[in-house]
Amino acid sequence: MTRAAYITRLGPPGEIRWGELPDPVSGPADVLVRTEAVAANHVDTFVRSGRYRTPTPFPFVIGRDLAGEVVGAGPGFSPGDRVWCASMGHGGRQGSFAELVAVPAERLYRLPEGVGAVEAVGVLHPAATAFLALFRHGGLRLGETVYVGGGAGNVGDALVRMASAAGARVIASASEQDADRCRAAGAAVVIDYRDPSLTARVREAAPDGIDVHVDTSGRPDLEAAVGLLAHGGRIVLLAGVAVRAELPVGPLYMRDGRLLGFAISNASAADLAGAASVINTMLAAGALPCRVTDVLALADAAEAHRRLEAGQVRGRLVLRP
Amino acid sequence: MTRAAYITRLGPPGEIRWGELPDPVSGPADVLVRTEAVAANHVDTFVRSGRYRTPTPFPFVIGRDLAGEVVGAGPGFSPGDRVWCASMGHGGRQGSFAELVAVPAERLYRLPEGVGAVEAVGVLHPAATAFLALFRHGGLRLGETVYVGGGAGNVGDALVRMASAAGARVIASASEQDADRCRAAGAAVVIDYRDPSLTARVREAAPDGIDVHVDTSGRPDLEAAVGLLAHGGRIVLLAGVAVRAELPVGPLYMRDGRLLGFAISNASAADLAGAASVINTMLAAGALPCRVTDVLALADAAEAHRRLEAGQVRGRLVLRP
Repeated sequence: MTRAAYITRLGPPGEIRWGELPDPVSGPADVLVRTEAVAANHVDTFVRSGRYRTPTPFPFVIGRDLAGEVVGAGPGFSPGDRVWCASMGHGGRQGSFAELVAVPAERLYRLPEGVGAVEAVGVLHPAATAFLALFRHGGLRLGETVYVGGGAGNVGDALVRMASAAGARVIASASEQDADRCRAAGAAVVIDYRDPSLTARVREAAPDGIDVHVDTSGRPDLEAAVGLLAHGGRIVLLAGVAVRAELPVGPLYMRDGRLLGFAISNASAADLAGAASVINTMLAAGALPCRVTDVLALADAAEAHRRLEAGQVRGRLVLRP
Repeated sequence: MTRAAYITRLGPPGEIRWGELPDPVSGPADVLVRTEAVAANHVDTFVRSGRYRTPTPFPFVIGRDLAGEVVGAGPGFSPGDRVWCASMGHGGRQGSFAELVAVPAERLYRLPEGVGAVEAVGVLHPAATAFLALFRHGGLRLGETVYVGGGAGNVGDALVRMASAAGARVIASASEQDADRCRAAGAAVVIDYRDPSLTARVREAAPDGIDVHVDTSGRPDLEAAVGLLAHGGRIVLLAGVAVRAELPVGPLYMRDGRLLGFAISNASAADLAGAASVINTMLAAGALPCRVTDVLALADAAEAHRRLEAGQVRGRLVLRP
């Protein structure tokens, strides 16, 4: 038996149980991993509540990310390998919030030498999201200008770091208290997101326009975003489940602008492996530092979900078995 | 001297003059063409009025398309060659509404054997727009499902023909009287655009969703379009200068949906040449029949613009010197 945080039906955080389940069945393409740390993501709460629809065979172990150690050999892995995964708990796969998890080998990556499970697991999901936003969907190229709305958040920080590492000029919004951290992450210009002249200041900082625009807030101002866009610019939409935004159609098509929506839950194993390769290089170089807010016991998963839904978490919540 | 329809400042159709201008200066990369027929496009009225901003050195010859005969040798062309072009009259280039036009060789294509100037010139611009919408921007692939809003219009007809020729299943909206013509052009399903249950009927006809959605009306219903989209589907935006439309952000990004805006005026010479190659193949095969509403004298260019702006033209207005 393995202890796990799981649900037997969709619903509020109170639906999360902590207890024993049969050991996961590991197929020929799977690798059995003993979990060292997991992270709680907003998307986990969407799966749990049913807001994001995906197969959840009950009892359904929640959670997407893990870092841990291989305990049963599988394709390409040996017992003792330190590994991570960031795409469990959706698409019919059981989640990561368990002591033992059977991970498809194609979704499992080696943890770089010297990188701890807690520090790694905190950045995996935001960093994979940022990578897909900038490169898989946004098509970011060397020398372009990127706007990151919410540059001090989890995804925002990874966006700033990856975009500047890729040779882009980064303009970010952040609170005044986070401005220095945002600049240290690589932003050339940081503007207070509360500044009523935010849009005018971005335009001033990028007179030739924004090539890739990513607002992590989930409250995209498409009027402002389209107005700031360079010719051929891309607006990446990755948040705002319940949002409706007014789109100025003429200014968008007149400048060959694009709106590119994506959810990481839809990403293919190949796209995720591409993100993982870059994340590992950056993790090994210490270029993706993690802001862990709190480390809870895995038994406290319900509490973690409650805090996320209350909007109380700045940084990342990590849990350990 | 050459006679031409030109303006000396931006403004209403009444600004169009008909008279003599000095012969165009043909540079080393240009080909001098004697015009046989030109077509009047909505975008010509946008350039004339200033609604679409582009350099218009005065006196500025209006007009985008022409079919004619080479009268002065240029790179790759010889006198007597029958040719066409669909990208004059913007980006600093003088327009096509003149007896003699100096066309950049990279924007000039041979008219296929046996194809008349009038029938060709009527389809060039709508067909190039349709090609760019479906393939350059929409990324249409064999076996996909395409929705064409306004399938009996000039661009709509070309969209239906090209999409079905490319192995896509086409669902189109059209008036009841145009339904048969739309089906003959290749639409598998034609739905009356006035049907209040239009969206439900499209969904019924495409239960797996729409892969490429193009509404030529300039009044895109993004609520309906996003709702109909297949996973990874694309909505192409190519009209609606003054339109604002409400975009449901969550449903778009949750299905990896994209909104791709483009204006043909922004297309590169290489992209236009790609379109021209397909247009020529289809013209030669008689697969792009033209619906010419009226043939006017080139001297009546102001009248042509008036009719376009009054929304009186169904089909195409062709003019001849």
